[in-house]
Amino acid sequence: MKPKCFAFTPGEPAGIGPDLCLLLTSYPQPHNLIAITSLDLLIERAAQLGLAVKFLDVAPGKWPTMPAPVGSLYVWNTPLATKVVAGQLNKANVTFVLETITRAVQGCIHGDFAGMITAPVHKGIINESGIAFFGHTELIAKLTNTSQAVMMLATSGLRVALVTTHLPLRDIANAITATRLECAIRILYSDLQQKFGISQPRILVCGLNPHAGESGYLGHEEIDIIDPTLKQLRQEGIDLCGPLPADTLFTQKYLKHCDVVLAMYHDQGLPVLKYKGFGVAVNVTLGLPIIRTSVDHGTALGLAGSGKIDTGSLYLALETAYKMAEIHV
Amino acid sequence: MKPKCFAFTPGEPAGIGPDLCLLLTSYPQPHNLIAITSLDLLIERAAQLGLAVKFLDVAPGKWPTMPAPVGSLYVWNTPLATKVVAGQLNKANVTFVLETITRAVQGCIHGDFAGMITAPVHKGIINESGIAFFGHTELIAKLTNTSQAVMMLATSGLRVALVTTHLPLRDIANAITATRLECAIRILYSDLQQKFGISQPRILVCGLNPHAGESGYLGHEEIDIIDPTLKQLRQEGIDLCGPLPADTLFTQKYLKHCDVVLAMYHDQGLPVLKYKGFGVAVNVTLGLPIIRTSVDHGTALGLAGSGKIDTGSLYLALETAYKMAEIHV
Repeated sequence: MKPKCFAFTPGEPAGIGPDLCLLLTSYPQPHNLIAITSLDLLIERAAQLGLAVKFLDVAPGKWPTMPAPVGSLYVWNTPLATKVVAGQLNKANVTFVLETITRAVQGCIHGDFAGMITAPVHKGIINESGIAFFGHTELIAKLTNTSQAVMMLATSGLRVALVTTHLPLRDIANAITATRLECAIRILYSDLQQKFGISQPRILVCGLNPHAGESGYLGHEEIDIIDPTLKQLRQEGIDLCGPLPADTLFTQKYLKHCDVVLAMYHDQGLPVLKYKGFGVAVNVTLGLPIIRTSVDHGTALGLAGSGKIDTGSLYLALETAYKMAEIHV
Repeated sequence: MKPKCFAFTPGEPAGIGPDLCLLLTSYPQPHNLIAITSLDLLIERAAQLGLAVKFLDVAPGKWPTMPAPVGSLYVWNTPLATKVVAGQLNKANVTFVLETITRAVQGCIHGDFAGMITAPVHKGIINESGIAFFGHTELIAKLTNTSQAVMMLATSGLRVALVTTHLPLRDIANAITATRLECAIRILYSDLQQKFGISQPRILVCGLNPHAGESGYLGHEEIDIIDPTLKQLRQEGIDLCGPLPADTLFTQKYLKHCDVVLAMYHDQGLPVLKYKGFGVAVNVTLGLPIIRTSVDHGTALGLAGSGKIDTGSLYLALETAYKMAEIHV
């Protein structure tokens, strides 16, 4: 495949995002990976880590046509508001963080980038700065005018997608509507076909309640919402199994016959995924008009500038975005 | 240790409970294990399975003083209301099921049994018969006048206890009160000391909300309820870590420093436990004045009478009850 441009946003500048940026220059990339961040930040963090990285300035109108050589990094310089101290959050740089994401999304929409790969932002500091922020995925959905996106995490042998993502537990039951569930399943089905090349995706669906409601004795959403929605979509030929109790669904008996698990909420689906593959998992946003993958970990403020970080999830996020772009064309 | 009497209740008679009863006679038991069930049922199921088991009749006042020989089973005969067909639920036998559990619990209270081990009942059929029933654990708590019990599942290398158990998801947030959480932690701490011999139990506590509420941006229960409760109990010397996000808590970084994970609800804690140890996990009820363990699986109606069942969880349930009785004395 001809090399394409991909955007990488390092997220929170006081976290390990900039470190990840620098570390990935040690290995050759098959594509033209462009870090959208501050050049000053990278220079300073490289000095802190004792890394000699050559920065190659790129910008709209002068995109690279081949991958950067090992030891080099393409950078679309995006100025900080104030100097960054590794490990210390600063509200002043929130606008910078959001600007890097916006640049990446718009570049994807305009066709400058074949996809974007993100390192984590810090929800707390963005909200503290006065900007209401629910999550990276939600922001990218908004920037691409996507009414519903689906978060999916994947590790070797297991994919888990979520119907709801970053909601307080007490709000989840009311958020599980037939419309939302149907939309999530359609996105999952269609994106697994189009972006993952699975011709007939098999989807295992969790119940909302313990024991999937146990025939209504432990909750009614399975009977009132989930069962009828699955029934309707099965008639269209979508391969759906469930709703199944979440505690027994994650066993080989079921998993070996499925391509993805659809959990109703964050803490129902992600503990198993991260137990199985923490540090070697990738977060993929489905339902967007663009390709976006992300690492599975947080900002790790305490490790920024230390050099003691694992790049496993980043490499998987890059590899997944590259593959998706190949299939999607 | 001198052999003691332990009660085994096979639970739903149309499920695999009677089969488990019969299969466990293939191996020697270190204690006098007494099946509380119908002799007719066992005779019929043994014929169906092609097993030659010798039944030894026992009852209050004539308890055995040594383990049954291999190939034999002590039975405290408890009459069925109607004949059982393997795999077919029948409301008529619900009273029988509850009677076997009541006999076991009362025998434990009176000191006839050192503990009880249970196979699963079927919640649906009990409720259909007109008896409100939330779960085995809840019934045993009621029979022993226990205001709050704690369900804990354990497999090799991981124990998970729950603050709430069989509640619809929409009721969970309101059920997490400071009183309930404090009580659950006290039970867990005290029973891990007294029944598991762990002198200073280290407890990892999950948040209620995704990302443990992310400083209040994804829910307030961590700030309002969980944090203050943990703080108070830490001052008494209880080793508590958390509240932590459930999706990253189940990773070696945290697990290697803990004896038990306390999850706020069923589907937050049990998927990982069963992913790791399905079929080789045991369910232990803490906070009771008696010892009770259970298998980790359901009634498996479709497998009753087939002989194609795994006894791994049953052996772990027996072994755990025996060990707890040894430590508890």
